[in-house]
Amino acid sequence: MSYKGLDLEQDAAALTAQLVDFPSESGSEKPLADAVEAALRDLPHLRVDRYGNNVVARTDLGRAERVILAGHIDTVPAADNVPSRLDDDGVLWGCGTSDMKSGVAVQLRVAATVPAPLRDLTFVFYDNEEVDASLNGLGHLAAAHPDWLAGDFAVLLEPSSGQVEGGCQGTLRVLLRTEGTRAHSARGWLGVNAIHAAEPVLARLAAYEPRRRVIDGLEYREGLNAVRVEGGVAGNVIPDECVVTVNFRYAPDRSPEEALAHVREVFAGCGVAELTVADSSPGALPGLAHPAAAAFVAAVGGEPKPKYGWTDVSRFSALGVPAVNYGPGDPNLAHKRDEHVRTETVLHCEAALRDWLTG
Amino acid sequence: MSYKGLDLEQDAAALTAQLVDFPSESGSEKPLADAVEAALRDLPHLRVDRYGNNVVARTDLGRAERVILAGHIDTVPAADNVPSRLDDDGVLWGCGTSDMKSGVAVQLRVAATVPAPLRDLTFVFYDNEEVDASLNGLGHLAAAHPDWLAGDFAVLLEPSSGQVEGGCQGTLRVLLRTEGTRAHSARGWLGVNAIHAAEPVLARLAAYEPRRRVIDGLEYREGLNAVRVEGGVAGNVIPDECVVTVNFRYAPDRSPEEALAHVREVFAGCGVAELTVADSSPGALPGLAHPAAAAFVAAVGGEPKPKYGWTDVSRFSALGVPAVNYGPGDPNLAHKRDEHVRTETVLHCEAALRDWLTG
Repeated sequence: MSYKGLDLEQDAAALTAQLVDFPSESGSEKPLADAVEAALRDLPHLRVDRYGNNVVARTDLGRAERVILAGHIDTVPAADNVPSRLDDDGVLWGCGTSDMKSGVAVQLRVAATVPAPLRDLTFVFYDNEEVDASLNGLGHLAAAHPDWLAGDFAVLLEPSSGQVEGGCQGTLRVLLRTEGTRAHSARGWLGVNAIHAAEPVLARLAAYEPRRRVIDGLEYREGLNAVRVEGGVAGNVIPDECVVTVNFRYAPDRSPEEALAHVREVFAGCGVAELTVADSSPGALPGLAHPAAAAFVAAVGGEPKPKYGWTDVSRFSALGVPAVNYGPGDPNLAHKRDEHVRTETVLHCEAALRDWLTG
Repeated sequence: MSYKGLDLEQDAAALTAQLVDFPSESGSEKPLADAVEAALRDLPHLRVDRYGNNVVARTDLGRAERVILAGHIDTVPAADNVPSRLDDDGVLWGCGTSDMKSGVAVQLRVAATVPAPLRDLTFVFYDNEEVDASLNGLGHLAAAHPDWLAGDFAVLLEPSSGQVEGGCQGTLRVLLRTEGTRAHSARGWLGVNAIHAAEPVLARLAAYEPRRRVIDGLEYREGLNAVRVEGGVAGNVIPDECVVTVNFRYAPDRSPEEALAHVREVFAGCGVAELTVADSSPGALPGLAHPAAAAFVAAVGGEPKPKYGWTDVSRFSALGVPAVNYGPGDPNLAHKRDEHVRTETVLHCEAALRDWLTG
């Protein structure tokens, strides 16, 4: 399939429509990566690098600070909602309108229209964000070319309804296994019931008082929850195993190691035979105290909020780059058949970033 | 496939071997039912009736009491352990040796060799005991021809290692469902965790003190156990449902209704949104106080034990006929590849029943 080249002369709303009409489901990003690369190479003020289907473009003006504008170019599979459709109310409908081709359009417009920013700029376009973390293009870039991602502050243009969302929570999932001894339930006294043994685990969860922590003025609410419980062999057998899966969402002032130590402490002495880490992803500090970040917040306006959930900002955080989410899409519409975006929000976002970068 | 007729002249051990070599997996009992019927019709002192693959033979001597000897003719699928094999130590190996063709052999031998018993006799041979309860031939007989099953006392020749096992426990399974409200686990405070809500259910189970009840000299131990727990939507979702499956095994002085009322009482006030009965089977009183039963226990010797687990004796109990398990097989070998029976136990069982019935 071939698509005409991207037209960076049109505004970010029109460009969003062109990007949506250029399908790029995860794993099939190459044509769009090619088009993005070609459009950027037409801009003489940018150095363009490519790694796989990830494209990085940088100014090199010797400014005191460097900021990064990043976004993923893949989408979830379309749901009969491509090509895009602009309705009479200025709402653009289609797969990726919110998550996050509107953000990518804003990146491309800033790249094309701000040749001499106050801060050096790095534009990152990456693939495979919507699928398994091991495929994530930003992760691949961070591993292969961390120097391409150097900077003082990063803005990830994920959908945030045009509001600044600072940092992100960390997430840790552990399996808490209790043990027992099988027996026929007609002779239950010969066994030890592993489901009954899970009672203290649930009691700790039910009694847990989650912490609230203010960082850079943002309040992070933690949470410790059972997200799964499984036990049982057959309807007439005392079960010898029960597993409670617990998800700890924690404020980014804890490291993953500290989060795990906390979870171990919470469940200490309640008869857990084995605690296994299923997965762990660090949080990201909002970094709003950084001058570039403060200037950004002042320029785009609104009240920054903490990000609940895990996003790729934490990949920047792991590289030592404070990062926020700020994008025109609506996060509640992501991955939905009726996904859409308000074109005025896209234009507002484009203008706000340009203001920040041109003073 | 055709097999030669059953030879009721040989002793019960040899007859067991002939029966084992006559495969009768559940659902394929017709040839064996035909052979049993034919052999019984050769005995002039018996009236023989048939319903499906169930065969009932009765004396009609006008005795003051009537006792029933019952057994199922089906087996679980063979596991490369047919035909039978008699080793040098007098152990017979093969599918059904213990469960329960040795018991069926004893029934047939008593039928053939005790033409004038002190008590009128009813022999019941039935199909589909090893499969779903709805297929059980004894259940079908009880529904279609309860008069064929009339009697004062029944002996079910299920494997009991030649010991009298009186009555059986009842069993009740209920599903206890707790409810919550889904939310993303990053914003857990927006939800209500149904797994956490199951904690009081597990607490009641862990604290439960099961009753012990002596009936006709036999001690029944009850038990209340979680046999399954299931809850969880996804690794990042506060679950809105959790279901604990509880199995109550109860002494036969409780009716199923009383057992359910007890379980409702145990879990009252601990936040269960819904209690559903998954299955319920009544227990059976041992009935050892009945004169025929007392005479039986005296004749076969040993110390009667309570039966833990549910057996077809409760079907007799439901018809008002006290019943016990007493058979030559070893219950621990049932359904195993290395299933076997000691021939001396089979012969002892045959002799003990003959003694009881001939004084």
